[in-house]
This record gives sequence, C-alpha cells and structure tokens, in this order.
Amino acid sequence: MNQRPVTIAFDVMGGDHGPLEIVRGAAQLTLDTPHIHALLVGDRAQIDLALSQVRHHAERVAVHHAPDFVAMHEKPNAALDAKPQASVLVAAQLVREGEADAMVSAGHTGAGVLACARTFTLIPGVRRAALATVYPTAVGRGAKNDPFSLILDVGATVDASADDLVAFAVMGSAYARIISKNENPTVALLSNGTESQKGPARVVEANLKLQSLPGLRFIGNVEGVDIPKGTADVVVCDGFVGNVCLKMLEGVSETVMELAKYAYKEKLLWRAGLAMLSSGIERIKEVTDWEQYGGAPILGFDRLFIKAHGRSKARAISNAGKVAARAVSNDLANAIQALLPRA
Amino acid sequence: MNQRPVTIAFDVMGGDHGPLEIVRGAAQLTLDTPHIHALLVGDRAQIDLALSQVRHHAERVAVHHAPDFVAMHEKPNAALDAKPQASVLVAAQLVREGEADAMVSAGHTGAGVLACARTFTLIPGVRRAALATVYPTAVGRGAKNDPFSLILDVGATVDASADDLVAFAVMGSAYARIISKNENPTVALLSNGTESQKGPARVVEANLKLQSLPGLRFIGNVEGVDIPKGTADVVVCDGFVGNVCLKMLEGVSETVMELAKYAYKEKLLWRAGLAMLSSGIERIKEVTDWEQYGGAPILGFDRLFIKAHGRSKARAISNAGKVAARAVSNDLANAIQALLPRA
Repeated sequence: MNQRPVTIAFDVMGGDHGPLEIVRGAAQLTLDTPHIHALLVGDRAQIDLALSQVRHHAERVAVHHAPDFVAMHEKPNAALDAKPQASVLVAAQLVREGEADAMVSAGHTGAGVLACARTFTLIPGVRRAALATVYPTAVGRGAKNDPFSLILDVGATVDASADDLVAFAVMGSAYARIISKNENPTVALLSNGTESQKGPARVVEANLKLQSLPGLRFIGNVEGVDIPKGTADVVVCDGFVGNVCLKMLEGVSETVMELAKYAYKEKLLWRAGLAMLSSGIERIKEVTDWEQYGGAPILGFDRLFIKAHGRSKARAISNAGKVAARAVSNDLANAIQALLPRA
Repeated sequence: MNQRPVTIAFDVMGGDHGPLEIVRGAAQLTLDTPHIHALLVGDRAQIDLALSQVRHHAERVAVHHAPDFVAMHEKPNAALDAKPQASVLVAAQLVREGEADAMVSAGHTGAGVLACARTFTLIPGVRRAALATVYPTAVGRGAKNDPFSLILDVGATVDASADDLVAFAVMGSAYARIISKNENPTVALLSNGTESQKGPARVVEANLKLQSLPGLRFIGNVEGVDIPKGTADVVVCDGFVGNVCLKMLEGVSETVMELAKYAYKEKLLWRAGLAMLSSGIERIKEVTDWEQYGGAPILGFDRLFIKAHGRSKARAISNAGKVAARAVSNDLANAIQALLPRA
C-alpha cells in the first residue's frame, strides 16, 4: 500500500557540521522512504555541491535557494528582522504556503521557535507554543517498554499559565501517541510534591483542569525524581523549569562519573572498573543526549517544526525527517485540537 | 581559648531511625566539642532510655519533655494545630525563649518550616524564608577547592518575587561564608540562559538588583548544566524550581547507572567494569545524598533551624549540630542583615 507523499523542508544552514550533513541525511531519507520528499532550503551552491557528493533519489529532492542564515551567536529577533531571506524563515514560509508539509532544522533554536511564531498559526485553543524533547529514563519501571519519556515545555514559553500547561499536556499526549506508537501515554504535571494541591497556583489549577479532561491519561503530579525514573510518558512543565531540568540532565551523567573518579581515586579496584567503563561512559553521553532522538518538536502550531540538535549528523537528520513525516501522515495538529478542552 | 557556649535544641522525634540515633549524635557532640550543649526535646522516657545506652557529657546534656510529634505522613498545618506539644514546635519555642540558640530536627520538613514560621521572626528586610542544601559538584572546575555548592530555595517558598530571590542570594552567601569558610562565595541566579535578560520577569529583575548589590560576589545567571558542574558556590532560585532540581539530582545518579547497565548489558567488558564498581555505586549514592552534609538550613529567620535528613544516623546529627553551632557563633542572622539591600 502506498503512503500519501509527504514533503519535508530541510533548513540546511546553521548546523554545527555545515550543510553537507543535513543534505546527506535528507538524501538518505529519499532513498529509504519512497513517500518522503525533501525540499532543501539554503545556499544553492553549497546544496548542489553537497548533492553532487551523496547518493539521493533525484526525483524526490528539490532545492530552494535562501541566501542568508541565522548563526548560533545571533539574537533571534534582531537576526530575523535583519535577514528576511534567512533559511529557517524561508523554510517556514514554504511550509505555510504548502510547498512542504513540515520542516526540520539543526540551526539556532530560538530563531526556529521565532520563525514558527512569525509564520505559522497557533492551533485554535492553544495560546502558547512549546518545545518538547524526548530523554532517556531508567528501564524496567512500570509497564513502559520504551526507555524514553517526553518533556515539554523546555524553553519556548517561559511563563506558562494553567491553561497553557493543560494545552502542553494535550500536545505532548498527542505527539507521544503518534511518534512513539504508545496508544495511551501517561501524562503528569511536574511539581514539588505528588499531592494535587502542591505547587504554585498555576500548577494546582492545571492539575484540577487535567483531572476532568477526557481523552487524556492524566496521572497527577510527579516530582523531580520521577524525571530520570520515567514515571510518566509525558512530563508537563513551563519552559523555565523544563529548560533548567533538561540542561541538568545533559550535564549530570558526565558529572556523576567525574565525581566517582574523584571520590574513589584511591581505590584501585574502582579505578580499574572505571577504566574498563571509559568507552561505555562516552556512549552514556550519547544515550543521554536527548536531542539525538528525532529532535525536539515545536508544538502548538498548525505546522510542525522539528528542531534537530546543532551537532546532528546525517543519521539524526534522517530520523528527524522521519518523525516529521509520521506526524504529518497522522495529522498531529488535528489530533491535538481534538483533545483540547472545549472553550 | 574557650569558645562561648552554644546550646543546640535537638528534636529527637520523627526521624526514620527513632530517637536513639538523634540522642546518640547529640551525645557524641557533647563529648567532642566542649562548647556545645545539647537540649534534647521529645518523649522523656525514650530520651532517658537512649541516654542510658550512650556515652555523653552529662553536664552538657539537658532534656525537655514534649509528649507529641509530627509523623512523616501528616499535613504540617493540621498537625501543628492539633499538637501544640509536638516536639518540633516545643523545640522552636525553647529557641525563641533563649533556652537554646538554634535547633536541629530529622523530622517532617514541612512541619519544621512551619514551626519556624509560627515561632521565629523574619530578619528585617526578609519577606520569605528559604530552605537551602549543599550538594556535590564536579571537581577541578574553576578555582573551587570545595566539591560542594549550596542551592536555595529548595521548597520553603514556592512563589518567590525578585526581592525574595535577592534576599535568598544574601542568605546563601552569608551561610556559605560562615559554614564552608569560603571568604567570598560566588552567587548565581538559576535561569534558562546565562544572559541577564533571560528568564521570567522576577529572575530578570533580581539579576538587575543583584548586579548593583555591594558585598556580594554575584556572577550573573547560570543554567541547569551548571548545577552539577558547580559553576557557582551558591545557586539561587525559587522553591518550586529548586525542589524539582534537587529531587532530580537525588534520582539521577542511580538512573544513570541503571541506564548504563541496560545499554551495555551485552558487552562483557562493561559488565565486568560495572561489577567492580558496584560497591562504589552505593557510595556515589551517599556522596550525592546532599542532606547528609550538615543538613538543610532554614534561612531568613532570626534563629537557625537545621533540617537533617529523615534517614540521618548519629554522625549526620552530630554534623548538623556542629553546623548550627558554627552559625550561631558567627552570628549568621546579623551577617545576613548586614548584606541585605537598604530598604
């Protein structure tokens, strides 16, 4: 059975490894998955050069020239104002105009969120967007087979109201259902206690609203300790708290190992154990590099933007493209809207 | 040179190991440190029984009977209302009345914070109290010799204003200066970016105020990744964010090791390494058990309350008593007041 074709716009500029890795990932996707078309957006000369070096399915690859891009050190607002032809903005416009169905970028996160805000339309009932990411959790806890959870928002909306948190819960649930093929993902609010009256007023109010929202498997509040444990499939918080948590996760595995070395440097047996683990430690860092897993979706808009990590290589870009295509094929925006509370 | 005597009230009830461990820790302190006196507060029969089993300096130990206590599962407000003779409340009253100079408890944290709020007086210029804890950080970064940082608030004040965050910064700086003998501790605000304009309005405003506050070594904003790294000696945030972070730290080392086992279970070399490390892993859990290190001070009141972990054994209780005595001897409350912004 043929799937309906899906076109993904790839912003090829702004990643740490330059356009070649993005083009390589998109090209591979056109070879692997016949229903996915790639629209490459960025400097045409660099894209053509890259395409000349990699196998790809020529009929399923198109190029759109964008002469500019936002560099990692730039301020998003000023950069997008100054560069209307920036690749991330052009890609978003192509998606809005229907030239592509969703987009992937490994460039500047803030510029990506802002390009969405300036170009896409919020889903009716959603007031603020959220950036979501998957992260690895402890295995063998509860009925979960999947060692990954989704957390949102991790930085798009720094001040979230109760209604925003409810919308984030809905967005996360719909996304997890489609992407991880988890029919009925558990959703929890992050708070400073599991009791429903714990937390700031916005969290307490969101808890109350989520308790009575049909179609969502809300399991109440979880605490910080439940993030690495993986108690919930979807963890909901505002972008300030989520960003702090995520960056802590990023740094913490490295630090634990350094602490271990420090604390036990005099114990020869432990030293030997650590030495034997050293290549494993490098791999732990990869496993805990959440952004490698299909990237971070910006949720809440009528169109989907998958933000791949700046360090993404071809495989990560391919994965991000696959995830974007699956979201499009399963009509993520409508799935979110159907779950939102009636106004 | 003799130090001025300091009396520490020990709430002996409510810890996970019962009164014996608390009494044992306090008793040891009277043997080790001649200037510290212990006032044991709780069920007299149990205290007398415990004292009969442990060596102690009888002239430096006193007992005050309190027939009731707050159990871990109780709601703090209701419990303190129903139990005016609860040990934690009686101990706080004895401190207020000058029978003791500071107090230590291994009981219910919320009840401890509330007992302070009901009994002590906020330092002029402080509007909200904060619970602070030390936690272990990566070693060898920056000029720090100490592998521990202080983070506050971790749960006393869920909604903190900009002025509250400024007061927390002052309280943390004064405490770190006295307890860790760090003459000029660095202080940072936790945010979702290092730039001073990053974060919710309260954080941005606090950053501005701290920049112009004399007597404080404010280094600006830090991110989540800087918590385990130990970039700052004192990390300042509201009690909601701090509580989530702290509980994440608590769970994460365990989880990283479980993940490692999962990810590499097929690699024999890694397995062997992990097996060799297994006793080390147990010790990592201890090292990352922040509350073992002198306990968590409740800061902002004219009197000091050190909340030891519920699991505290005698050694941890002794340490908490020592820390409390050092804070008293160095007049923590005045040190805080001297650093606060002029109203």
